[in-house]
Amino acid sequence: MKGFASDNYAGAHPEVLAAIADANHGHAVSYGDDPWTARAEQLLREHFGQQAVSYLVFNGSAANVLSLRALCRPWESVICAAQAHINVDEGGAPEQIAGIKLQDVPTLDAKLTPEQVERLLVRRGDEHVVQPRVASVTQSTELGTRYSPYELHALAHFAHERGLLLHLDGARLANAAAALDLPLRALTTDVGVDVVSFGGTKNGLLLGEAVVFCNPELADGFKYLRKQTLQLASKGRFIAAQFIALLEGDLWLRNATQANAMAARLAEALLDVPGLRLTQPVQANAVFAVLPASATEQLQRDWAFYTWAEATGEVRLVCSWDTTAEEVDAFAADVRRACNSALTR
Amino acid sequence: MKGFASDNYAGAHPEVLAAIADANHGHAVSYGDDPWTARAEQLLREHFGQQAVSYLVFNGSAANVLSLRALCRPWESVICAAQAHINVDEGGAPEQIAGIKLQDVPTLDAKLTPEQVERLLVRRGDEHVVQPRVASVTQSTELGTRYSPYELHALAHFAHERGLLLHLDGARLANAAAALDLPLRALTTDVGVDVVSFGGTKNGLLLGEAVVFCNPELADGFKYLRKQTLQLASKGRFIAAQFIALLEGDLWLRNATQANAMAARLAEALLDVPGLRLTQPVQANAVFAVLPASATEQLQRDWAFYTWAEATGEVRLVCSWDTTAEEVDAFAADVRRACNSALTR
Amino acid sequence: MKGFASDNYAGAHPEVLAAIADANHGHAVSYGDDPWTARAEQLLREHFGQQAVSYLVFNGSAANVLSLRALCRPWESVICAAQAHINVDEGGAPEQIAGIKLQDVPTLDAKLTPEQVERLLVRRGDEHVVQPRVASVTQSTELGTRYSPYELHALAHFAHERGLLLHLDGARLANAAAALDLPLRALTTDVGVDVVSFGGTKNGLLLGEAVVFCNPELADGFKYLRKQTLQLASKGRFIAAQFIALLEGDLWLRNATQANAMAARLAEALLDVPGLRLTQPVQANAVFAVLPASATEQLQRDWAFYTWAEATGEVRLVCSWDTTAEEVDAFAADVRRACNSALTR
Amino acid sequence: MKGFASDNYAGAHPEVLAAIADANHGHAVSYGDDPWTARAEQLLREHFGQQAVSYLVFNGSAANVLSLRALCRPWESVICAAQAHINVDEGGAPEQIAGIKLQDVPTLDAKLTPEQVERLLVRRGDEHVVQPRVASVTQSTELGTRYSPYELHALAHFAHERGLLLHLDGARLANAAAALDLPLRALTTDVGVDVVSFGGTKNGLLLGEAVVFCNPELADGFKYLRKQTLQLASKGRFIAAQFIALLEGDLWLRNATQANAMAARLAEALLDVPGLRLTQPVQANAVFAVLPASATEQLQRDWAFYTWAEATGEVRLVCSWDTTAEEVDAFAADVRRACNSALTR
Repeated sequence: MKGFASDNYAGAHPEVLAAIADANHGHAVSYGDDPWTARAEQLLREHFGQQAVSYLVFNGSAANVLSLRALCRPWESVICAAQAHINVDEGGAPEQIAGIKLQDVPTLDAKLTPEQVERLLVRRGDEHVVQPRVASVTQSTELGTRYSPYELHALAHFAHERGLLLHLDGARLANAAAALDLPLRALTTDVGVDVVSFGGTKNGLLLGEAVVFCNPELADGFKYLRKQTLQLASKGRFIAAQFIALLEGDLWLRNATQANAMAARLAEALLDVPGLRLTQPVQANAVFAVLPASATEQLQRDWAFYTWAEATGEVRLVCSWDTTAEEVDAFAADVRRACNSALTR
Repeated sequence: MKGFASDNYAGAHPEVLAAIADANHGHAVSYGDDPWTARAEQLLREHFGQQAVSYLVFNGSAANVLSLRALCRPWESVICAAQAHINVDEGGAPEQIAGIKLQDVPTLDAKLTPEQVERLLVRRGDEHVVQPRVASVTQSTELGTRYSPYELHALAHFAHERGLLLHLDGARLANAAAALDLPLRALTTDVGVDVVSFGGTKNGLLLGEAVVFCNPELADGFKYLRKQTLQLASKGRFIAAQFIALLEGDLWLRNATQANAMAARLAEALLDVPGLRLTQPVQANAVFAVLPASATEQLQRDWAFYTWAEATGEVRLVCSWDTTAEEVDAFAADVRRACNSALTR
Repeated sequence: MKGFASDNYAGAHPEVLAAIADANHGHAVSYGDDPWTARAEQLLREHFGQQAVSYLVFNGSAANVLSLRALCRPWESVICAAQAHINVDEGGAPEQIAGIKLQDVPTLDAKLTPEQVERLLVRRGDEHVVQPRVASVTQSTELGTRYSPYELHALAHFAHERGLLLHLDGARLANAAAALDLPLRALTTDVGVDVVSFGGTKNGLLLGEAVVFCNPELADGFKYLRKQTLQLASKGRFIAAQFIALLEGDLWLRNATQANAMAARLAEALLDVPGLRLTQPVQANAVFAVLPASATEQLQRDWAFYTWAEATGEVRLVCSWDTTAEEVDAFAADVRRACNSALTR
Repeated sequence: MKGFASDNYAGAHPEVLAAIADANHGHAVSYGDDPWTARAEQLLREHFGQQAVSYLVFNGSAANVLSLRALCRPWESVICAAQAHINVDEGGAPEQIAGIKLQDVPTLDAKLTPEQVERLLVRRGDEHVVQPRVASVTQSTELGTRYSPYELHALAHFAHERGLLLHLDGARLANAAAALDLPLRALTTDVGVDVVSFGGTKNGLLLGEAVVFCNPELADGFKYLRKQTLQLASKGRFIAAQFIALLEGDLWLRNATQANAMAARLAEALLDVPGLRLTQPVQANAVFAVLPASATEQLQRDWAFYTWAEATGEVRLVCSWDTTAEEVDAFAADVRRACNSALTR
């Protein structure tokens, strides 16, 4: 079963499995005090800047919640887009596990602006209300859009000027960087991002994410938080080896580029399908579109993908590192047929 | 670098890697709604009883903390041995993440008895004190000892009679079962254990543990807790495939048996080493011994193992699924030499 | 210094102090096991129905947070109006202390409707999102408006039909009841409210609120929650005596009636002030109005009141049990003068 | 009903009620921004040193839990005597509300020593274990004993040398100070205590405690913690007025001196009662004694007091600010009779 349901429906890239097998020799010190972890951390410094301090964790929810735990004192809040993964898809973990109130902002494109953040910077110093401490953005966003480096810089600059920090949920940061043809640091350290949840799973790993402190002063005590939040792997080498596979060469870029290219190909193929309308600019590896409900229903018999908004009939189509041009073309043809058929009934 | 530092210094069993590679074809529904997870859950039912309900998680700390979160209301406490992993090695997660007070009991062998639990069943119904709800035992224990099925049954019976539940930290349950030549359910479901943290990592997986509800009524809402506690893998098939490798045949038993046999071989070889004294019965895959500090120091130049108690010079020697007789013999010979040399100086 | 800043700027009613003095004889069992507490609980049953189970606490934030803690499991959320006190004035306590995500709804009048609640009842059973469990309303609201018993009944009916519970933040419930000329139970138990934070402080006590479980089944274990959440007074009689003073006769009603009457008088006096516009219907003890910034500035030299919204120049004027007609008239005259002067400049 | 059950069975001192009545005129700014609170804070500085920063709260559990929340990061622990109130009588609040693991030490007299603390200072920097940050002592202790200033100084000195802070649970600090004929600062600021939970309730208030930061640098952000932990009174003047009554003159000292004197009188009267044995030195306002169970049973028909340890028949007899010599003498005579009768049966 293949399709466009999610980039975490895809498996792991063969080079990732090979790296795990390579690491599987003899004993290694546990809990991250091993050469693979050291190497992964070095590679993360190469990609995010020599000052960067990184910690590997199991999944993206953990990378996000741990990042926020590290940045906020108990009375401090996080500003994010209403569509942010931390707001709608972490099962209440920011509140229960980190005790943090999210202050979410309605947006059309899941992107936050300094103006939106500013509107929430009221009653500062008033103990009756939570005090905003972090602005959190997702790159590329939950709607397949992305921030330009200029937009990120403006946010970071504004945040720092007002005593806030900037967190970037980078579950799909590789897709944004690939689409912009920029190195990872150009979207993070270089534009003032403080902490990144750097995603691996959606970009071809079995599992594994990194919390990257672009601002290393914020990492104080983080090793305790990671352990306490149940995210310290005992056989750390097996997560580290995957990151080595991803970052030592250009696998991270190849994977993301392929997923992006397939989304672009899909968008182009769908552009003139009658009855179908793209609802977001296609700037990474996802396509959002509205099409007739009967067409969706028919398509979902053969293809995996999610309805994003029941009310409007909007669907989400995500491409992965392993999506092929043949699949895209076959699916696009099916979409055209289904839409035609829906319109002519 | 090999040695006796920990069973999580060992790598993954080749059959486990093969199972992952086998699972790495095409797309699969994410977050555990895939055939591998279904198969792993079926196998867990075969091993723990058809009533058992299981959830896969990333690591042992998580399995423990989630088990306790599932069993306790906010004012309820957990009784455990002072040496319990939940008490000394989870970085305060039971308290911070689950909000649970542990009531620990000093023991010589890390084993809890009904009498010890009973002593803490005071002031019941008094809102000024936490109310004991769970007794938690580790099998095999942190000191390499184990409970007989009769001991576990007595604890479970006592617990249930007094309105408590029995949790079993089974990070090394396979070692106990192998040593006792009993199926897993004989040490859990059959003797009244309510919830098990069933370990995979220390027994040959890359990573992966299962929370097994022998009493399925206690699992209500657990899927939400797992997600919220950051333990739901997106590409769930890759943890599930490992459990299939472990449980479909007898890999779990082979691995544990080998580790146990090596510990027994080591204990026997050390028994008459002058200046060395075994401090715990060797009932699973670990050997605890006191030896001269200078001998330890010398040995640690060549071999990895941990000093357990600085004050007494007690060391812990753990065997793994991949420990060989040659290693054991070579190490034992070195120990003998080091102790002799320490005594004759 | 008097004025219209808040009903908690007012002191305690003399009858309340007299009741405390009366209770101050000899020793009494601590922690609520005293005759005054028993009497207060009896009176609360008389006012809220014989089935009601009540617990006294120190303040309104605690009554709210404890109510929600009692109703929600860790993954369950609370739906409320964006203006709700729990959302904007509890310092993040619902999230930090109770671990609960609030799902807030933008409203014009701080009142929630079944339609608004329904819109959030999506993805039920999906572990990636919090599951709505409680709708929380404030009566009278933070904007001085109130729910009719029919509106509350509709909300409760809808909530129960959909598996939700209804919490009522009644810091000013007495004002709503007085304004509607209804007993307290007609706005709570009789219309299906499950739990009430019943306010005393703003209605003439020194301090003291009650959590009233109209649905007593929900109170299971609440005594532990109260103690653990630091809300169990050791000398319980002194909070209980205040509630006796409030509820034994009609003091609760007299106080609320006076505050309401003064708000009505103030609203009437301001109705035709040039340049001033009332922004909410005056249905309890508060008046909201927009007036020229320069008028506000001038008035605040002599009178205490708060600017509610800097951007629009909206102010909040709250009347208390001790507000007098003379004060209202004097203030209204000053407002008229200040507005005239602002307009003619 | 009078007796020796607890110093929180006693009522409020008449001067305290008078102070509340005096404060009950006109309006006052809420939430602690009022002249009474300013005056109470000034008085606390006079008693604890000009550097001291104080916050009023509702009860002793809150003062303790808030103190510890202020001092600990999420992975830091608190060392205390096994008998400490925070360990056995806060309903699990340190763990649930503050997320803090307590590391308790068995003691005979409820007093902590530097040696006991030192034994727990192991595995520092190891993320698998909580990191001790605070030593918490109770003065006078839960067993009626007290620390000398030298003992406190030694603890503070040791704590600071090892990177720890010293918290003092002073629910009965006044009793210790009165017994030692020392000002409050001589037992706190002057000997290096960092934070004090300063008790008012047990010493003659209706309710009210203060968190006193002798080391003011530790108070950063505390106002947010107090609000969030549900401990900010809206009509703050009424708690402040009580502290003014307590501290402006010598009421705190008179009350504590009376309670202590009565305990000494009681101890002296019981010293030669046959069959009764005092079990702790009487150094504050409590007497602990073992007597025949039948004597206890008979006495409890007429007198209120608690059995402290069922197993040994130990009872606790607490004197209050309102205990009289007549009561003590009458009770002592009854004890003598009851013990004689128990022995001659």
